[in-house]
Amino acid sequence: MSLTVNWPRLLPMALPALLFSASVAAETPPPDNPIANFVLGNGMEVVVIPDRRAPIVTHMVWYKAGSADEPPGKSGIAHFFEHLMFKGTENHAAGEFSRAVAEIGGSDNAFTGNDFTAYHQTVTPEALETMMAFEADRMRNLILTDAVIGPERDVIIEERGSRIENSPEALLGEEIDATLYQNHPYRIPVIGWMHEIEKLNRTDAIAFYDRYYAPNNAILIVAGDVEAAAVRGLAERTYGLVPRGPDLPPRIRPAEPEHNTRRTVSLADPRVTVPSFSKSWLAPSYTTASPGEAEALDLLSEILGGGVRSRIYQSLVVRAGIAASAGAHFDGSKLDQGSFTVYGAPRGTAELDAIEAAVDAEIDRIIDQGVTEKELESSKNRFLRSMIFASDNQASMANLYGAALATGGTVEQVRRWPEKIRAVTAGQVRDAAKKYLGVDHSVTGYLLPSSTGRE
Amino acid sequence: MSLTVNWPRLLPMALPALLFSASVAAETPPPDNPIANFVLGNGMEVVVIPDRRAPIVTHMVWYKAGSADEPPGKSGIAHFFEHLMFKGTENHAAGEFSRAVAEIGGSDNAFTGNDFTAYHQTVTPEALETMMAFEADRMRNLILTDAVIGPERDVIIEERGSRIENSPEALLGEEIDATLYQNHPYRIPVIGWMHEIEKLNRTDAIAFYDRYYAPNNAILIVAGDVEAAAVRGLAERTYGLVPRGPDLPPRIRPAEPEHNTRRTVSLADPRVTVPSFSKSWLAPSYTTASPGEAEALDLLSEILGGGVRSRIYQSLVVRAGIAASAGAHFDGSKLDQGSFTVYGAPRGTAELDAIEAAVDAEIDRIIDQGVTEKELESSKNRFLRSMIFASDNQASMANLYGAALATGGTVEQVRRWPEKIRAVTAGQVRDAAKKYLGVDHSVTGYLLPSSTGRE
Repeated sequence: MSLTVNWPRLLPMALPALLFSASVAAETPPPDNPIANFVLGNGMEVVVIPDRRAPIVTHMVWYKAGSADEPPGKSGIAHFFEHLMFKGTENHAAGEFSRAVAEIGGSDNAFTGNDFTAYHQTVTPEALETMMAFEADRMRNLILTDAVIGPERDVIIEERGSRIENSPEALLGEEIDATLYQNHPYRIPVIGWMHEIEKLNRTDAIAFYDRYYAPNNAILIVAGDVEAAAVRGLAERTYGLVPRGPDLPPRIRPAEPEHNTRRTVSLADPRVTVPSFSKSWLAPSYTTASPGEAEALDLLSEILGGGVRSRIYQSLVVRAGIAASAGAHFDGSKLDQGSFTVYGAPRGTAELDAIEAAVDAEIDRIIDQGVTEKELESSKNRFLRSMIFASDNQASMANLYGAALATGGTVEQVRRWPEKIRAVTAGQVRDAAKKYLGVDHSVTGYLLPSSTGRE
Repeated sequence: MSLTVNWPRLLPMALPALLFSASVAAETPPPDNPIANFVLGNGMEVVVIPDRRAPIVTHMVWYKAGSADEPPGKSGIAHFFEHLMFKGTENHAAGEFSRAVAEIGGSDNAFTGNDFTAYHQTVTPEALETMMAFEADRMRNLILTDAVIGPERDVIIEERGSRIENSPEALLGEEIDATLYQNHPYRIPVIGWMHEIEKLNRTDAIAFYDRYYAPNNAILIVAGDVEAAAVRGLAERTYGLVPRGPDLPPRIRPAEPEHNTRRTVSLADPRVTVPSFSKSWLAPSYTTASPGEAEALDLLSEILGGGVRSRIYQSLVVRAGIAASAGAHFDGSKLDQGSFTVYGAPRGTAELDAIEAAVDAEIDRIIDQGVTEKELESSKNRFLRSMIFASDNQASMANLYGAALATGGTVEQVRRWPEKIRAVTAGQVRDAAKKYLGVDHSVTGYLLPSSTGRE
């Protein structure tokens, strides 16, 4: 029913495909199919992405409220609320919305991130107005009684138990985040700390609902075989009737201080068979970066460790054969500061230390000597190709625009992303590595079998 | 003029003497000199500690508001406000209060901690009413204009620069705290993060003043050659005229999640000549502990590393001669979770790793074999003797009661501390070590010269 989109720092290869591989609009959107972007009278932003290839439509509503918007001590309330949105309203019984989707062969889901919470359905175009009516209804009309909230809290406690407490990787990932971010709420897990989830109650839920669930804090994305004018009419008849909520102050969260130390976070557990490490740094996000810097970090992660053509993969996995996996990942899709991560796990009798040293050496090599024009060109092509693949997928496109708009971006920025990627120079890639990947302020996580000496 | 009492985690030997060595009431306070404890009509708590040995009096006001009570993103406002309390009021010009103290040969100061802010003067008994009148005046009548606040913010920025930014020890200590506490505001430095101090303004100052500076959030401590009845009369004529402030909610801060990882925090700096390490754990405080547990942790720190008779000192400094310094420290004077720390620095050609291993071995030895009755007895005697020394010092006694009452304790608990220390068993000491000092959830700090491989 619902899915927490967190960005596991340790295992980027496990990132939810929908957002990680989702990239950007086709480089040249057909001029007769322009993306429409307008605002309803009550402040709800609307994006319509024409896609005529199949008679389906992706309908999403993104709220600009995620885990980093939670009050202190109330971790998990954003995700908890995502669950509550599937309960009954004054007009529809619990489960009625999802049943309506299933009956017409559609699918629906929802997810919560640091900066947003989103709800989506994929259905036939004829059902779009019904989806909008259901979604507009639950934006304000949920029935939030203790009888609804108590049992759902148990569901979430169970979810945290099975997804986090039972997983050494997930527990380590949480404490890496809590170590990487010293002041900003990104240090707090999206699902919430167990001891705080256990205390979430009706008052917390209603306060979160009343503060954040309103048309002027929401973005509607419709992708598919639809006309913008028709979507506008449907949106006005459904969402347009929901009154504007209170004005929200700017989303200013406590920012990170300067980091001066090198940190490590180690978890040893008998369930771990192959050790692994990850090394993370704070880095700017697309929202906070100077012009071109986030794009340079994306290409740096591509060159350094983005798939089988990357330096780390070629060196550790292919040539030396010492790593079972190794790579890099830049998380720039954040309202505030993002992060850059490298990772690896040994193969056969190789030692974890050797993997880490080999990955570090690849970083140093870029800092010292930069990247070649040839590999920059090739990485741009790979990166843009993955954008084009993503733009071929309706849901990916909807996700891409939703995530960008919910973290301070604009439709125009998303459209211009490919040309900005093309403009990155080799010097900018090297500068980004130099500026952000210093080992003296890194956070390294170690996931270890119980018996190693490092424990 | 003012002093930030922070608890440096790395260098417990450097703890401000007034609060670290301050301990507890004499074991048997003279029955004709009972400590008086009462509450004024406006909610201000008063403690009077008779001390007839000299014609001096220590006058303190403690506010139950410290850095952990600051709003998110406003770090440093508690300490900033301590500075502002020395500015002008509607009735007295800036500096007039301190000048009045100096003119009669007295002394005054103030300090800010995680859980409290305190102001004190030491003067002759005749001047007590004047002190009370000044202190009651600035409790509500400060003039807080931008002209006052702007220049003082510059003073604090300079203070942070010289005390923290210029000190590798202090920078490391901050990031150790930020790593040890993942969710609780004790992770934030008392003086504040620089980027947040720079933005503190008049609105923040007034909000903090109006919320926390009121008689019903304050504790008056008077120690010296005074009669309780007379102090009550003076207090009623001065503080008693200040109207009660708004009722404050319980001081509930975000609590720590379970810790599952071993963490390290390393700072390498050319100014460091001798490397050192510290290892910290979360531990209960006197306020949060089960009965007897905090006392057992105090005796554990005494046996393990409390001075020259301790195991760590005897083993590393005296017998092996490998350490220049080494010891242990329990910080139990907290409203919420406290911490336990061991530390050491090598001597001559000894390696830091060897010092850490030797300290770890002493912890393991207590976890495995416990402590002997003889050393427990001896540690109790040393601990209680230091309490008696402290009780010989008027300011120490005043500090002790103030700190206890501002962190949830009572006068009765302070008086009964010696008997509770006496009651601790060897089994409790071992249990405390076993329960809290597991290496798999420790945070180790390394302060290193720039050139070591660990950097």
